[in-house]
Amino acid sequence: MSANALIVQKFGGSSLATMEHVRRVAERVARDRQRGCRLVVVVSAMGDATDDLLELLGQLNARPVAREVDMLLATGEQASAALMASALQALGCSAVSLTGWQAGVATDSVHRKASIVRIDTSRILRELEDGRVVIVAGFQGLSADAEITTLGRGGSDTTAVALAAALKADSCEIYSDVDGVYTADPRVVPDARRLPLISYEEMMEMAHLGAQVLQIRAVECALLNRVTIVAKSTFTEGPGTCITEVDAVEERALARAVAQERDVAKLALMGVADRPGVAHRVFAALAEAHVNVDMIIQSQPRDGLNDIAFTVSRDELPSAEEMARAAGRELGAAAVVAEQGYGKVSLVGAGMASNPGVAARMFGALASAGVNIEMISTSEIKISCLVRAQHVDHAARALHAAFGLGQQAALGRA
Amino acid sequence: MSANALIVQKFGGSSLATMEHVRRVAERVARDRQRGCRLVVVVSAMGDATDDLLELLGQLNARPVAREVDMLLATGEQASAALMASALQALGCSAVSLTGWQAGVATDSVHRKASIVRIDTSRILRELEDGRVVIVAGFQGLSADAEITTLGRGGSDTTAVALAAALKADSCEIYSDVDGVYTADPRVVPDARRLPLISYEEMMEMAHLGAQVLQIRAVECALLNRVTIVAKSTFTEGPGTCITEVDAVEERALARAVAQERDVAKLALMGVADRPGVAHRVFAALAEAHVNVDMIIQSQPRDGLNDIAFTVSRDELPSAEEMARAAGRELGAAAVVAEQGYGKVSLVGAGMASNPGVAARMFGALASAGVNIEMISTSEIKISCLVRAQHVDHAARALHAAFGLGQQAALGRA
Repeated sequence: MSANALIVQKFGGSSLATMEHVRRVAERVARDRQRGCRLVVVVSAMGDATDDLLELLGQLNARPVAREVDMLLATGEQASAALMASALQALGCSAVSLTGWQAGVATDSVHRKASIVRIDTSRILRELEDGRVVIVAGFQGLSADAEITTLGRGGSDTTAVALAAALKADSCEIYSDVDGVYTADPRVVPDARRLPLISYEEMMEMAHLGAQVLQIRAVECALLNRVTIVAKSTFTEGPGTCITEVDAVEERALARAVAQERDVAKLALMGVADRPGVAHRVFAALAEAHVNVDMIIQSQPRDGLNDIAFTVSRDELPSAEEMARAAGRELGAAAVVAEQGYGKVSLVGAGMASNPGVAARMFGALASAGVNIEMISTSEIKISCLVRAQHVDHAARALHAAFGLGQQAALGRA
Repeated sequence: MSANALIVQKFGGSSLATMEHVRRVAERVARDRQRGCRLVVVVSAMGDATDDLLELLGQLNARPVAREVDMLLATGEQASAALMASALQALGCSAVSLTGWQAGVATDSVHRKASIVRIDTSRILRELEDGRVVIVAGFQGLSADAEITTLGRGGSDTTAVALAAALKADSCEIYSDVDGVYTADPRVVPDARRLPLISYEEMMEMAHLGAQVLQIRAVECALLNRVTIVAKSTFTEGPGTCITEVDAVEERALARAVAQERDVAKLALMGVADRPGVAHRVFAALAEAHVNVDMIIQSQPRDGLNDIAFTVSRDELPSAEEMARAAGRELGAAAVVAEQGYGKVSLVGAGMASNPGVAARMFGALASAGVNIEMISTSEIKISCLVRAQHVDHAARALHAAFGLGQQAALGRA
């Protein structure tokens, strides 16, 4: 990175949990500034500040108006920003904090889930020219009708990426508790290793699958704007993981990483008529109730009857089951089965789209490990298998070994 | 008050200390709204929120930049406003919260002590027309260079008065823990009674003298704009005290109330040369150190030498004494004396300007009560006497009785 590089850095709530944390982050930022980098630092609310505010609000109003929620929550990031600027100033580092609207972040007017529509960077550029580190309150913006909006959970990641795009920053660094994206969960797979590089698409699959390094929306925004993100650890040194465009054939891994998920529940409508509109009847009701359906399998029809099975997170099983039973009655299903105790193990890799043998190799590895596959779903760059929850860790280790993910570093690949 | 009256109400931090408090204030506001009043409600930060934020900041930076302090503190009132609006909405009362800048409060750019220069009421009027109760974050505004400013402690009172002026409101109600302004401190003088009416000027003297009902700056703003303030209690019913223009002769009380203050310290420079510039030398240094000097007495010169005595609050004695000793050395004072253990008792009344006998009557009452007067200072509408701290309560009771302040209600006056 050249000395005069423009870097956007983002620090999340857990990196700012206490004033001691804020001071340490400030020291890190001040060091980068002393190296000559021009810095825009996006901050989230401190630690549990957002949850604390929502808890207070919940005492007053069980169904708060989204506009007022945004007015309330936006204070969290504004306070963080002012504290971070003050911590930098205490270190002799010139800094200024900006709210979302002062930073020129214009959004649509969908409160609590606003999208950034434009960033007017003039104020930020002016502050940078004056030699200041610019601290921007993440997660927030201003709608065309001068209302404060928030971008939804994890929105500060998106603020950082959008700012990096608008400012044509040299780098966008997202800091968190972990030092990058791993080939598997290191708590489960001992030889899991940090990936130096992962494609946007792979990262989106990983984010979906529970890796908590980055919000998926921020990755989408990065992909759209071709912003390279570096995921790094706040309080340890290290190169982190680069999330970027991975085009070169040699960089397109057959299998990049193994992701796993627990607490999956399965629902099945058995013996429903095989006619148009049946699937719509089932899933429209679930969508309306905001139940997040993950895998969906419809069997080959037999005697004019189908089985439709799908998975939801265990939390959502009660409401999903209610919907499924109502739909089952209406559609004359022979039975509706709800089962807990499942998990999901997935193999992610941008190279697998052009390599049809990956799925077979994956199923073979699981069979050798004695893991029974209950459902399968695939995308261009991912294969997911539903397995019994108690088999998830074992399956993850087996896949990690079968695809040599732990060895790549030793072999000098990627 | 007519049904369609426009009322500005202000609730301070102690009225919003917990969500239960917020809910009760919301119920009160909703009742007034149901009566048909159009309401603009100014809120302070909740309870100790401002102090808590300053405490966090203090951990990071011992000398924070005022601009960043404003960014930080302004979040307190914004959060209050959003919570209050949400509490009203939970009661089925249409409401909207506005930050200072959304409410159109334009200030100068003196951070932490900004003055309101203009209020663009268009947004507030639009919300009122839409039938909403408008909750405004007090204490804050926006400078011409789009920076968030705060008005200094107690600034929410000023926000309320300035809004009442700009909106030509029918009434401006300031709510606090106490149900009005009293003829004396009821904890000290048992027959002290609530004043139905007090003039701006009298209220300013009272505010100076420690009555905590209203910030003096808000009263000045009310006087300037001829806004009538009603000081009321948040959680009890009652007419409160009306702070307004008191012109009619019969309404101009000789003595309206007794105010008292403890923790006063006295400093004296003995035997300094009686020549021009001496007083300036002493008090310019104190002003520069932001020491608040109250009473000042300069004796008649004798043998070309003067004694200069003045009072400060006990907290400020150490720094004041240091200044006084430096000035004393420079001016060749014979001695510099610093003494704690004083208090002040004052009689306030707009009618005393045109009635020269009041002072004599006051001194007589104190003499009869055996209270020795150490220093005297007077204004058009106030006479203050410095007495020993242990005599303050006794002196207040004596004056309250001598001027019949407790009896007026019984006699049906005022």
